[in-house]
Amino acid sequence: MKVPLALTMGDPAGIGGELTVLAWQALHDGGPCFVALDDPRRLTGVPIVEVTSPKSAQEIFREALPVLPVGLAVPAQAGKPDKANAQAVIKSIERAASLCLSGEASGMVTNPINKAALYDAGFTYPGHTEFLAALTGAMGKQIMMLASPNLRVVPVTVHASLRNSISMLTTDAIVVAARTTAAALQREFGIVHPRLAVAGLNPHAGEQGALGDEESAIIAPALVTLRTDGIDVSGPWPPDTMFTRTARAHYDAAICMYHDQALIPLKTLDMDHGVNVTLGLPIVRTSPDHGTAYDIAGKGVADPSSLIAAIELAAMLAERRERMPAA
Amino acid sequence: MKVPLALTMGDPAGIGGELTVLAWQALHDGGPCFVALDDPRRLTGVPIVEVTSPKSAQEIFREALPVLPVGLAVPAQAGKPDKANAQAVIKSIERAASLCLSGEASGMVTNPINKAALYDAGFTYPGHTEFLAALTGAMGKQIMMLASPNLRVVPVTVHASLRNSISMLTTDAIVVAARTTAAALQREFGIVHPRLAVAGLNPHAGEQGALGDEESAIIAPALVTLRTDGIDVSGPWPPDTMFTRTARAHYDAAICMYHDQALIPLKTLDMDHGVNVTLGLPIVRTSPDHGTAYDIAGKGVADPSSLIAAIELAAMLAERRERMPAA
Repeated sequence: MKVPLALTMGDPAGIGGELTVLAWQALHDGGPCFVALDDPRRLTGVPIVEVTSPKSAQEIFREALPVLPVGLAVPAQAGKPDKANAQAVIKSIERAASLCLSGEASGMVTNPINKAALYDAGFTYPGHTEFLAALTGAMGKQIMMLASPNLRVVPVTVHASLRNSISMLTTDAIVVAARTTAAALQREFGIVHPRLAVAGLNPHAGEQGALGDEESAIIAPALVTLRTDGIDVSGPWPPDTMFTRTARAHYDAAICMYHDQALIPLKTLDMDHGVNVTLGLPIVRTSPDHGTAYDIAGKGVADPSSLIAAIELAAMLAERRERMPAA
Repeated sequence: MKVPLALTMGDPAGIGGELTVLAWQALHDGGPCFVALDDPRRLTGVPIVEVTSPKSAQEIFREALPVLPVGLAVPAQAGKPDKANAQAVIKSIERAASLCLSGEASGMVTNPINKAALYDAGFTYPGHTEFLAALTGAMGKQIMMLASPNLRVVPVTVHASLRNSISMLTTDAIVVAARTTAAALQREFGIVHPRLAVAGLNPHAGEQGALGDEESAIIAPALVTLRTDGIDVSGPWPPDTMFTRTARAHYDAAICMYHDQALIPLKTLDMDHGVNVTLGLPIVRTSPDHGTAYDIAGKGVADPSSLIAAIELAAMLAERRERMPAA
């Protein structure tokens, strides 16, 4: 990477701060360089150097955690979110996005936030992803991918009840998710001929209509369109057998119809190394695949594996973007 | 086991016959004894001895595959189901159930059938399980469990579209499935204090109602009833994190809200060793967790792991039943 990654603070009452410190410890000797957009007073146990721009982070990173200060209004208390700090949390995200857009940061990695704690401060988005889409002028183009060493999954519907997810499923939504995924796999993941496997919605992929007709009415037409695009897609597959080791060898990403169809296999196979990647944005953005974990915050037991994996994946994606000609 | 298990033929055009032969090869030297209810003419490559009752199977089993003849009307053709053989398929199942009810067999293991090929012969059941419930006077009490070395799952709704599964979900159905499971774990699986984990239906188990209300309206009342019964239940759990290795250590079976919520984690973790166990019947019944596999039938490549696991589990369950006082 030519310039560092930007790492946001996340909810100051959650495990973000301690994970940032642990990630620096794991990565400072040769790993991807990042700058923390955080309050330096709360990052303890490692040498800290305050910087005014990501540029100066690179020479510091091996010896100290570079921090671009974003001050908290009140000291963070582990496990106790405070609305007084909402503006700082939002500012850290905005600043990271802006550094990415200006080219001062190669990409951004976000520590987990608690949306409820931000709503009073005027945060009106369902989550990080939509906020970043708005900040980067890509609203409606954002697609969530979960990536682990074993599996990449893209849920077409995400944060809705299971009943509403079924109602929200459209041929268009499947086509858009698959197109965005295929383009990202090619451009950013370096897969020359990406293969997508599209899941059915129903048990046994509907069993020729006996167990539901969404496969023929909604999913099959999407496959036709995608094949016309020249995208290598297969499906609709019976959901229960498409995530076995044998089946996984035949595709680079699974396009899933609902949240848990995607996240159950991913987390069952590898709870600790899942990374959330937002596709469809003009910037690189990843995040760990867990929440604020108030229950263990401040206890020194949080596992930085997912954040470290998120930083490493962001670096890989950023490097590929640097090498690729613009789309 | 005091008496052998009964193994049905399944669809003669599927992989059942070759699996039966492979299972005998794997188990004849010290494994659980079984008698095949099949047409001896189609079982090739191993020594066969025709028997007239399971009793004589035990002395034969080490040296030859004991077969209680059920003649096919026409020779079986791999991959090509023939309705002329439907009566033999049904007779094999009926005979096995009747041997279990009379105590001549310890339990039954069923090779996969193709329901569509049986409908013309008057078979009116959605599948094996309901047919066996009817044959054993337990209609409506049958509960499907899938068991592997890593995980046991019980789907509360089974063969329906995802949309209909949500509509069919009731507090009563959850209570019945959990009670049957707890009783079976205790009586047949030898778990003194069975712990059940109940899944939510929605992403994040509904996120306090933001992503669906089935957790509070349908699932929580079932947990209250089950706790009043003295059953150790927890939940409703977020479905995506309840099948990780860490989470699985805290329960003996997961009560799942729909087919794929149960079968995705089970098959993702272990495609080859899943066993279907029917709980709630007066007899022991297991089956391999795969279908007729017409596409590979007769090619000598079918994997007998799941059938072998089904036979071994049936033997274990039968032995526990023998040792337990009647309920």
